[in-house]
Amino acid sequence: MGIPLQIVILGASGDLTARKLVPALLSLAGRCTEPFRLVGVARRPLSHEAFRAQLRAELPEEDRQAFDGFAERVHYLQGDAGEDLTPLGHQLEALPGGAGAGRLFYLALKPGLFLPAMENLARGGLLAQENGAPWRRVVIEKPFGHDLASARALNRTLQSLLREDQIFRIDHYLGKETVQNLFAFRFNNTIFEPLWNRQHIELVQITVAEELGVERGRAGYYDAVGAMRDMVQNHMLQLLALIAMEPPSSLRPETIRDQKVAVLKSLRIPSGDACVRGRYTAGNVGGQAVQGYLEEEGVPAGSTTETFVALRAELENWRWAGVPFLLRHGKRLPKRFTEVKVQFRVPPIQLSDAPGTEVLADGLACALRPNQLTLSLQPRETVSLGFGVKAPGPGMTMVPAQLAFDYKDRFGGQTAPAYERLLLDAMNGDPTLFLRNDEVEAAWAAVDAIPGQPVRDYAAGTWGPPEADRLFHGCEGGWSHG
Amino acid sequence: MGIPLQIVILGASGDLTARKLVPALLSLAGRCTEPFRLVGVARRPLSHEAFRAQLRAELPEEDRQAFDGFAERVHYLQGDAGEDLTPLGHQLEALPGGAGAGRLFYLALKPGLFLPAMENLARGGLLAQENGAPWRRVVIEKPFGHDLASARALNRTLQSLLREDQIFRIDHYLGKETVQNLFAFRFNNTIFEPLWNRQHIELVQITVAEELGVERGRAGYYDAVGAMRDMVQNHMLQLLALIAMEPPSSLRPETIRDQKVAVLKSLRIPSGDACVRGRYTAGNVGGQAVQGYLEEEGVPAGSTTETFVALRAELENWRWAGVPFLLRHGKRLPKRFTEVKVQFRVPPIQLSDAPGTEVLADGLACALRPNQLTLSLQPRETVSLGFGVKAPGPGMTMVPAQLAFDYKDRFGGQTAPAYERLLLDAMNGDPTLFLRNDEVEAAWAAVDAIPGQPVRDYAAGTWGPPEADRLFHGCEGGWSHG
Repeated sequence: MGIPLQIVILGASGDLTARKLVPALLSLAGRCTEPFRLVGVARRPLSHEAFRAQLRAELPEEDRQAFDGFAERVHYLQGDAGEDLTPLGHQLEALPGGAGAGRLFYLALKPGLFLPAMENLARGGLLAQENGAPWRRVVIEKPFGHDLASARALNRTLQSLLREDQIFRIDHYLGKETVQNLFAFRFNNTIFEPLWNRQHIELVQITVAEELGVERGRAGYYDAVGAMRDMVQNHMLQLLALIAMEPPSSLRPETIRDQKVAVLKSLRIPSGDACVRGRYTAGNVGGQAVQGYLEEEGVPAGSTTETFVALRAELENWRWAGVPFLLRHGKRLPKRFTEVKVQFRVPPIQLSDAPGTEVLADGLACALRPNQLTLSLQPRETVSLGFGVKAPGPGMTMVPAQLAFDYKDRFGGQTAPAYERLLLDAMNGDPTLFLRNDEVEAAWAAVDAIPGQPVRDYAAGTWGPPEADRLFHGCEGGWSHG
Repeated sequence: MGIPLQIVILGASGDLTARKLVPALLSLAGRCTEPFRLVGVARRPLSHEAFRAQLRAELPEEDRQAFDGFAERVHYLQGDAGEDLTPLGHQLEALPGGAGAGRLFYLALKPGLFLPAMENLARGGLLAQENGAPWRRVVIEKPFGHDLASARALNRTLQSLLREDQIFRIDHYLGKETVQNLFAFRFNNTIFEPLWNRQHIELVQITVAEELGVERGRAGYYDAVGAMRDMVQNHMLQLLALIAMEPPSSLRPETIRDQKVAVLKSLRIPSGDACVRGRYTAGNVGGQAVQGYLEEEGVPAGSTTETFVALRAELENWRWAGVPFLLRHGKRLPKRFTEVKVQFRVPPIQLSDAPGTEVLADGLACALRPNQLTLSLQPRETVSLGFGVKAPGPGMTMVPAQLAFDYKDRFGGQTAPAYERLLLDAMNGDPTLFLRNDEVEAAWAAVDAIPGQPVRDYAAGTWGPPEADRLFHGCEGGWSHG
């Protein structure tokens, strides 16, 4: 790090602070040579001591002991991010390093407070990096706007207050080891890249399936957002970008982000039929009867918010033209899993005795597809490559088999939580795993272009409305069940 | 089968009959709808009963009960394959089906007797397939000649007596499930074939490593043949052909064999340095002290026969030009294994933080090779695909991992012995897994063209003479240790 470091969380009384940020900072504190200071800002009047005690109580049990060694570096300031933040400036001046410290402002705020907070930080002189002052950076939580227009407005204001390299738009999915592995897997091996195009790949499907419904206390937020904006526009399009991007020429952040933006800009949802929205009704998940979305506490009467989205997208570029990318996300599905599945084309001729066809539900006889690459991100992180092997015995009868790899078997499952990685990168000024302005806007542009669709009911514990199954055409197969 | 079937083994008193052929026939008898007759021919005077009793005694314990139900279909004829075989004709006439039966003659004879036996069968009218007589086929054991000239002479005589489709030159390696899987694996999946060429593959190595020395009682035979002719010219070049062949346009036997011949005809051993021969001296294998080859019982004094061969071959064709195929076979090596290992090229640029180099024995720093496909044929049949994954933690550090598959886990290891499959194919007239005349000749031509080399000593229990390691150049790596 080199210089002293001050971390400010605006909105420090929220859930995110105790559940994600402080555990991540505790873990980092154990490894940083330069001890850092943490200042929590929230509206309630609290002493430093009371804030520390409150944080400690909210921390996961296993983190409390580590917190005791860290607590003296935790400070509190009563303040409203929507009002004058001059007192925050004074407090930071008084901490070790003073104005000479690097400063990271983490906006753990409601979206409506992003802009006022930024303006107040600027007005207090807290963001100025000129005249030899060390770095000032701002981490902004999702949602980053609610459509293209609002994201653009937000970017415009941010850029009037900060340089782009000071802005860290967080998507915690990119902090996951499993997600970074998509990149590593593609570009540090030679055997996948030659296959990774329209000539060899028939279809790609990406699923983020949840068993949970809307979480307690979040119904108000969720209902204003819905599945498309809560999951597809950000996390799933990021997965798509990592799967489909061209190889960057280096690991430089801008080089990588340029290629991700290029993918998002080529994204098209061809027609209204290519998007299916759904909403769960009462049903049964994992043996438990659960209520429908409209009955959930906090969901407004007459809501038309979707809890399920399935898309058939295409990428209009040289590599992928004509290859469908099927994206699906839903709550209250039968199983929790996150998975990318790459279906390779069938062999051009059949060199086996039993041609190996399967009859699909609609009576269509299709050649068996011997090769799929399944990258599972949750609940287990595995790589599995389906291939055909000869069944023992006379003749050349092929049967499916799996080449399999499990990260946990190899690494023992000790991967760092996403927030820890992302906070470390923000401290180090590495924006690779954060979203750039044009990236966010390209994702919104793609999502905004999707035609409105009726919200169709599906029973909790099913795989969504049956219309979603019809996004697969002909012999393309069907949705993965994890 | 349709018609009655008579199987004649010429040289029925040998080891092969009791150890391989009769167990295979017993297993087939249990599955054939049309019961067949077996006639053993050998020099010793024996009654049918005595022959049956002798076979039974020599059979593996577990086969004896099945043999009791089969014994009445086993017959014996005292005869010399080098003399008049008219009595065999009479005996076959008298058996069910008579001249109307399909007849398979299995030449389990010393190589010197192949031609006389064929001539006597022909003279006895036993090979004639004209005038509506059912099929007559001959199975010939290795060695098929000892060089190109002798193989050609043998083929010429055979073809004067039989049509090519009546001749079944056996290479029992082709009867192994594991070997057929090489074909199945390549041509019933779409993901390997696009990678299977000089653009993506750096090097292929094929190893048949044995712990055994020369087997008891076989020293005389082995010393006249040596490692090159006993293993490389037949079995290993067959493995090479299956790995390197172009996709055939169908499963028709001639289509497949045409492509295998094309590979063998393109094979070149570029220079004298590209072949290393060795002979084991006393040493230690698997914790046991063993004697050197020259001390083995039955090895003639002054022998210059090799027990180890390593080759660096090339295929002069569009797909493989410039890709070295390294072949290695030896007796008294540290470990028994048969393996094909395909090394893919390193990625064109490094997209990881730690470039991942390894320093070879000679001090050369080489980029780590993330991708190898290892097809193990013995002792376990496995497929393993090496690839790089991101090590958990900040940064993009790649570490090696394996996608793995084990046939035994999938199929329980109940694969049929090679001879059973091959006998069944010969009965059915399917020559796919047998060697065609031009295939044998092409293999001899390639081996004959290898310049003579001194035989270098290696201690039993080592990986052969050190010169063999120098067949790898620059950053190509080294021999697999299984």
